[in-house]
Amino acid sequence: MSDEVIPQGLWTGDYFNEGSGRDGIFDKLKEECGVFGVFGHPDAASMSYYGLHALQHRGEESAGLCVTNGGDFNYHRGMGLVKEVFDKDRLASLIGDRSIGHVRYSTSGDSKLTNAQPLVFKYRDGDLAVATNGNIVNAPKIRRELEQSGSIFQTTSDTEVIAHLIARSSKDFVEAAKDALQQIVGGYAFLLMTNDRMLVASDPNGLRPISMARLGDAYLFSSETCAFETIGAEIIRDIEPGEMLVLDKNGLHEDRFAEPQRKALCAMEYIYFARPDSELNGSNLHSSRKRMGRRMAQESFVDADVVTGVPDSSISAAIGYAEQTGIPYELGLIKNKYTGRTFIQPSQELREQGVKMKLSAVRRVVEGMRVVMIDDSIVRGTTSRRIVNLLREAGATEVHVRITSPPFKNPCFYGIDTPDSRELIASSKSIEEIRKEINADSLEFISPEGLIEAVAGNNVNDYKGGLCMACFDNDYPTRTDFNGEEQFGCSC
Amino acid sequence: MSDEVIPQGLWTGDYFNEGSGRDGIFDKLKEECGVFGVFGHPDAASMSYYGLHALQHRGEESAGLCVTNGGDFNYHRGMGLVKEVFDKDRLASLIGDRSIGHVRYSTSGDSKLTNAQPLVFKYRDGDLAVATNGNIVNAPKIRRELEQSGSIFQTTSDTEVIAHLIARSSKDFVEAAKDALQQIVGGYAFLLMTNDRMLVASDPNGLRPISMARLGDAYLFSSETCAFETIGAEIIRDIEPGEMLVLDKNGLHEDRFAEPQRKALCAMEYIYFARPDSELNGSNLHSSRKRMGRRMAQESFVDADVVTGVPDSSISAAIGYAEQTGIPYELGLIKNKYTGRTFIQPSQELREQGVKMKLSAVRRVVEGMRVVMIDDSIVRGTTSRRIVNLLREAGATEVHVRITSPPFKNPCFYGIDTPDSRELIASSKSIEEIRKEINADSLEFISPEGLIEAVAGNNVNDYKGGLCMACFDNDYPTRTDFNGEEQFGCSC
Amino acid sequence: MSDEVIPQGLWTGDYFNEGSGRDGIFDKLKEECGVFGVFGHPDAASMSYYGLHALQHRGEESAGLCVTNGGDFNYHRGMGLVKEVFDKDRLASLIGDRSIGHVRYSTSGDSKLTNAQPLVFKYRDGDLAVATNGNIVNAPKIRRELEQSGSIFQTTSDTEVIAHLIARSSKDFVEAAKDALQQIVGGYAFLLMTNDRMLVASDPNGLRPISMARLGDAYLFSSETCAFETIGAEIIRDIEPGEMLVLDKNGLHEDRFAEPQRKALCAMEYIYFARPDSELNGSNLHSSRKRMGRRMAQESFVDADVVTGVPDSSISAAIGYAEQTGIPYELGLIKNKYTGRTFIQPSQELREQGVKMKLSAVRRVVEGMRVVMIDDSIVRGTTSRRIVNLLREAGATEVHVRITSPPFKNPCFYGIDTPDSRELIASSKSIEEIRKEINADSLEFISPEGLIEAVAGNNVNDYKGGLCMACFDNDYPTRTDFNGEEQFGCSC
Amino acid sequence: MSDEVIPQGLWTGDYFNEGSGRDGIFDKLKEECGVFGVFGHPDAASMSYYGLHALQHRGEESAGLCVTNGGDFNYHRGMGLVKEVFDKDRLASLIGDRSIGHVRYSTSGDSKLTNAQPLVFKYRDGDLAVATNGNIVNAPKIRRELEQSGSIFQTTSDTEVIAHLIARSSKDFVEAAKDALQQIVGGYAFLLMTNDRMLVASDPNGLRPISMARLGDAYLFSSETCAFETIGAEIIRDIEPGEMLVLDKNGLHEDRFAEPQRKALCAMEYIYFARPDSELNGSNLHSSRKRMGRRMAQESFVDADVVTGVPDSSISAAIGYAEQTGIPYELGLIKNKYTGRTFIQPSQELREQGVKMKLSAVRRVVEGMRVVMIDDSIVRGTTSRRIVNLLREAGATEVHVRITSPPFKNPCFYGIDTPDSRELIASSKSIEEIRKEINADSLEFISPEGLIEAVAGNNVNDYKGGLCMACFDNDYPTRTDFNGEEQFGCSC
Repeated sequence: MSDEVIPQGLWTGDYFNEGSGRDGIFDKLKEECGVFGVFGHPDAASMSYYGLHALQHRGEESAGLCVTNGGDFNYHRGMGLVKEVFDKDRLASLIGDRSIGHVRYSTSGDSKLTNAQPLVFKYRDGDLAVATNGNIVNAPKIRRELEQSGSIFQTTSDTEVIAHLIARSSKDFVEAAKDALQQIVGGYAFLLMTNDRMLVASDPNGLRPISMARLGDAYLFSSETCAFETIGAEIIRDIEPGEMLVLDKNGLHEDRFAEPQRKALCAMEYIYFARPDSELNGSNLHSSRKRMGRRMAQESFVDADVVTGVPDSSISAAIGYAEQTGIPYELGLIKNKYTGRTFIQPSQELREQGVKMKLSAVRRVVEGMRVVMIDDSIVRGTTSRRIVNLLREAGATEVHVRITSPPFKNPCFYGIDTPDSRELIASSKSIEEIRKEINADSLEFISPEGLIEAVAGNNVNDYKGGLCMACFDNDYPTRTDFNGEEQFGCSC
Repeated sequence: MSDEVIPQGLWTGDYFNEGSGRDGIFDKLKEECGVFGVFGHPDAASMSYYGLHALQHRGEESAGLCVTNGGDFNYHRGMGLVKEVFDKDRLASLIGDRSIGHVRYSTSGDSKLTNAQPLVFKYRDGDLAVATNGNIVNAPKIRRELEQSGSIFQTTSDTEVIAHLIARSSKDFVEAAKDALQQIVGGYAFLLMTNDRMLVASDPNGLRPISMARLGDAYLFSSETCAFETIGAEIIRDIEPGEMLVLDKNGLHEDRFAEPQRKALCAMEYIYFARPDSELNGSNLHSSRKRMGRRMAQESFVDADVVTGVPDSSISAAIGYAEQTGIPYELGLIKNKYTGRTFIQPSQELREQGVKMKLSAVRRVVEGMRVVMIDDSIVRGTTSRRIVNLLREAGATEVHVRITSPPFKNPCFYGIDTPDSRELIASSKSIEEIRKEINADSLEFISPEGLIEAVAGNNVNDYKGGLCMACFDNDYPTRTDFNGEEQFGCSC
Repeated sequence: MSDEVIPQGLWTGDYFNEGSGRDGIFDKLKEECGVFGVFGHPDAASMSYYGLHALQHRGEESAGLCVTNGGDFNYHRGMGLVKEVFDKDRLASLIGDRSIGHVRYSTSGDSKLTNAQPLVFKYRDGDLAVATNGNIVNAPKIRRELEQSGSIFQTTSDTEVIAHLIARSSKDFVEAAKDALQQIVGGYAFLLMTNDRMLVASDPNGLRPISMARLGDAYLFSSETCAFETIGAEIIRDIEPGEMLVLDKNGLHEDRFAEPQRKALCAMEYIYFARPDSELNGSNLHSSRKRMGRRMAQESFVDADVVTGVPDSSISAAIGYAEQTGIPYELGLIKNKYTGRTFIQPSQELREQGVKMKLSAVRRVVEGMRVVMIDDSIVRGTTSRRIVNLLREAGATEVHVRITSPPFKNPCFYGIDTPDSRELIASSKSIEEIRKEINADSLEFISPEGLIEAVAGNNVNDYKGGLCMACFDNDYPTRTDFNGEEQFGCSC
Repeated sequence: MSDEVIPQGLWTGDYFNEGSGRDGIFDKLKEECGVFGVFGHPDAASMSYYGLHALQHRGEESAGLCVTNGGDFNYHRGMGLVKEVFDKDRLASLIGDRSIGHVRYSTSGDSKLTNAQPLVFKYRDGDLAVATNGNIVNAPKIRRELEQSGSIFQTTSDTEVIAHLIARSSKDFVEAAKDALQQIVGGYAFLLMTNDRMLVASDPNGLRPISMARLGDAYLFSSETCAFETIGAEIIRDIEPGEMLVLDKNGLHEDRFAEPQRKALCAMEYIYFARPDSELNGSNLHSSRKRMGRRMAQESFVDADVVTGVPDSSISAAIGYAEQTGIPYELGLIKNKYTGRTFIQPSQELREQGVKMKLSAVRRVVEGMRVVMIDDSIVRGTTSRRIVNLLREAGATEVHVRITSPPFKNPCFYGIDTPDSRELIASSKSIEEIRKEINADSLEFISPEGLIEAVAGNNVNDYKGGLCMACFDNDYPTRTDFNGEEQFGCSC
């Protein structure tokens, strides 16, 4: 429903709060960023515009594009949505057959335009542009060392670190980049562009998604495959952990800067972040989430009258739960998508009179009913409590909460902005304590095995798409301790 | 998904093409308008802002609000969405405890600001504001007669006619309005406001929806109940056919200007226009549409692998079809919601290369599959053909189309903009001919009885919510012939 | 200096306060409106755009244009400056070879868009558009009579009256217009347009300026000749008092609706309103104002060190005063042209710290100097007092004020917004009392004869350009009493 | 005249072509930039807003402000005018008691936002912001050396060079800055700010203007004094050549980084760039320009009927010429100030029909007259030819051109964007040849001595304000040769 109300039962991505952020009643996880690259298409900027638009849910705060024809760089970055940052004239002025682009969801609260990517630098060998998704755990340490030897920084983005490392090297660009990547610890997908080359890299654990496609003679790279669908490109494959692709006038060169470590793709991408029409490791996300719902129904069935999902991210799972149990899936919750910076938020007074900020319950559907409410995660617990209460005020006689992730207990080092451990309700409370806190009649989380099997789908026996579940089980795939200089969250 | 892509399976209202209209590949019916009234709330303008926002899908072209405290009128109208037309300062300046508001979806191609409602006039007794949803069949005739006797018009909106009829009368406002309504033939909901009174009227057949709610001491009126949910008001009832409510300092007075004729609420409101979280005649629309899907499954089952709905309006029905048949409901179609006037449309060249305008099929989901595709209506047939072909190109082996309305054959006289009969494919072609035209493996429409029973739900035996199905069966509830001066479509 | 600071000594038209109004420290007279018409030029809209832009100083609040090719009307009106109201696409859509346009400076405080002109109506014979500059003294009376017989009004603009009078007549358009003009008392220039004709009329005293020019085969009409200069047209003549020109496919027809009364063109047009590069009655305004300054120097010489003018309207006169006396003309006052609605006004606190709102004195120029300060008029006296004090604070040892109009004592009935007589300082105080009030060392006003001779210039013996000086001498050229229903100011 | 038409005779700064640039018919010199600093005022951002606004004529392309309270920096930069770049909310968010600001007029054609100043960096000791006016002649050489040792640059602005030089030093900030300034050759005014200090420096020849004022306890710095007048501050003095002021919590410390060389303030500041209400070396600019006009009248009198100046920069000189000769000063030329990006330029077709782009002649004033036309400089000669022809077409019988600068022959190395020497008409043609080229009846330039004496005014005997006249006499005050790596124009 465009931009006003997304009825529950009608998934549309919780993350598509155009400009309205996650504040307010939603204490959801913040998304990281999205990258999109084109090499060899005469309309690189236009293709990127549609590609980045498809990745908009990964970052609504700023957007940017750097384009070249092999010579000088043309670039533009701005605060806001892709469609706001680029107008027709601007896009037409970005002439070139290769480009890297970025959408950003600031996690640090520092939303200065200077941090908008792609970052663009001039160095000894010419121009260098960088776009990242993810986080460099040891960025503060590297940055401190660079500053000690006279480097100046224009951003607070740790992405700038990689440019300095490359510029400081006396080697050729590709070797310099390889050296730089070897010094970096974290979870990331990098797109780098010089006047004559493009370089694509994925961290040694493949923590953040990055895929490749072809369109005619052009190569395309994207954080999610939905962007390829939009522009009619053919998906080729995911970039491998530790892999480094170099593109130049002679085509694509496959290389690597590190041996692959255990595959550990972010589980929250499956559960929550990625668009339902994207695919990860060959699985459609809507189908994966339906399987999570089905699995929940098997693990923790409850007798009820209606199943409803918290819009938008839990609709697919709710449909799965309904399909498995035979309990009808209904529109019990509505999300008001007060989109955009221009929408006037209701005053405190009006909210107290009943004007709903974002979410409301549909009385006609839930009154007198026993409701199963599917959600994707519980972070602080405040949102869940609020939604359960909305359903009760609208007349639900029972509210049973089912969560399609295991309890979220630990902070992320690989690109997701998470609150302090102390604020993560599951880090200090039992499930029964959380149930009471959120005022539910029952509360169940999917089991870790259940999640893995739902993700694997039919390929469960030969599933090779290892997950990072550190936020659930504290098993981080990389080193995370740098004597207090390590960095959480997202470095974009 | 805010405003880029609404995955199918995720209903969000086909009509929420923010600013992008129905042109392009979509040959859908155009919406009519929405009205919203407040009487007796100190923040009438703010309540109306949220109310009209909830009705945005009924008209995205212009919005307006006229407010008073019992004295002078304050009003503002503008082209664009509610959130674009009103900014904070503007809203704060609209001081008053009563108001009438309007959102408009121009049907005539004449999108001049002067036609934006509410229309506001000065006449002998002071100020008069009018907001309408619907159409006056005999407007051209009345207008001609008024001009002959010296009236001047400032709009091409037939709504202006009622103001002239009232101003020409020598009676008191309420009596004058009653006389005026009796001269008018059509389907409409009217909100009128003078300096000291408000008047709400529904045509003698109740063709267009209009409901009443309470919030504290205030009375609220809205084309759809979803607006009440948003602001936390309690739904009271629908306005009756031929009824006329008058509100003044002494409260609410129930009156009528005509005996009720057979109840004939627009069937397309149930099928397509109204929001899934609204209710009509006591039924939630999402549930009604699920019943349509279930009914279709009973009437015309087909063995298949996946069910998918054409987003956004057919998602509910597709879920119903899946529930009834056990065939899984999947995300086979994605709608790219390139919202807003600022989005840059892909060039013809890019579209030919595969950049999708609005809708694309998800290859991972449909490849190698037999697909049931649910849609709400077929107007010219061009869209259906296009969508079927998208599915085939993405690898669907069979495409079976199921339509939740009977064949659309006749133009509407009551507020829906329809093309010439000659362009309505069902007016000249058989179902088999249409099937061939749209390249489907099978094609079935819901039966008229099936539609009525799905709408009625459990109340099928004592269902009193009579439908206007003239577009299907040519049985118009009012006179429609005025010697060539009768008017189709929508008069807003 | 574009839009920040217009140094005094550098006339740029006091009226070019883009969007900033006359409020604040300036208690100047408010301008009336400007009209511009084109008949017979294929780019009528573009010519009008440049023409109206040249008339911008006559009205900065709204702008509008109605264009036709002989059939339907295309029109657009909006709040703001000409360049803000029309963008390229909008202008390109206004196709036609004839047009009437308007810029408005609201005098009533009612700045609703609905009052923006040209007003456009539909009546028995088709479309009718009206643009006016001036005031109809008996408009309230006519309006009341029309409402009594059932007319409805959409504006508070009295210009709507003339459309009703024409629509109510059973005669042909030209005869109906003639009848209507004969019922109207006031000072005005009218442009009327129907689908096939244009009509231009000036009141029987020629109170408001309106001139005609040719450009190729096209006829042009404008409130001021500067608009002709801008577009390269050749000035033909002024429209005569009581004259009525009709243009149709057969060309220009000269007619009249009234015998000419004594010529009485508004004296304030010469003194203050019109642009210095316009000409009235064959005289360039800059030169006329220089003569006023010279005359003041003859009538009331004072020994001083520098002459300075209050920007922008008094610069020409100040140069004349300096030329006549040999006292150097210097930049003693600077006007800060904080243009546009987007400029952030300094807070009260900052103003108290010395941040100047609009006008400041240049210390380097006036310190230790005896200053002659030329201004065009004194309305309430508050501005004059403030400017004198600015000069004193900057170190002027003496300030001698010379005003190029006689004392302003009486309200205007012909299109200039004036305050209540009680607020006009000259209506109750002697010149010596005013001098004390404004804290000047001396104060002199030009004599009425001096003004007339300065206006007449070399043509003083055969000067036929009679002036309305009612605001100075209470000698109103028309009837002004309608039993309390007469209207002051401006009816646009 | 806000933004439409600046009648000649009414100076308003040729450079105030809001957004419209100097292209088109004007081949004028391009302005350099303006800087404004505040130290110790609680509303530093607001004061800077008004200060930068007063300097707007020095740069209309971008504006920026960096503010601090002694801790973190808040900054904002944007493309456009000061009033466009900062809105109320933005300004309110810039909290701090010290700030440096900048307006920029891109001279390089590279108008990327990244080059907007103040530039802000992070380095070992914290934050560093830099704002400049002027040019670093040896910037390319220094930059190349820095890149060789691994520095990366984010801008093409040479201002970035100074930040690198400081960051590379191991000394304290003030000593590091002193070292850096000693490596730099050029003409400049620098404002630098760290978390706890501000530093102001002028090059050893004082080529670019920079002055100091006080407002209460605060120190203010500005490229021109007009900014001080606007905010009510008291002018203290100019910064001396080679001087370096340091401000910290202990107040102002006077220091220097170089011995003063011969004073060589840019002559074009006097002739053309600075605002007429500014003062340089104690002289008001309007008065200085009047003296230039008087001097021209003495050096090259010609018998004529009217004197007119090319708006806006030559109005003061024209008034001086008229005062000296007794020939009346009249409004012979009008400048249409089609301001702003939103103004629709007339099409080629309309221009051919006579719609004037920027400048038109007033026929009523010049017809049949012998005209003296005063202008400030001749660069390529194309503009002068065009203006002379405008006057002739409007009926002038003779046109005598008087230029208030000597012939412009050599490029500028100190901040003014000049074309190639080959395009400077005076570098290859005699005065008589130029006269023919511009179609004038006579042409004279002011003599170098005349210019100096006019600038000096009454202080001619003890005038110490030495001028840089290198563009006229090729006598550059600094080294300008760096083996082909030297840079012209402006480095902002």
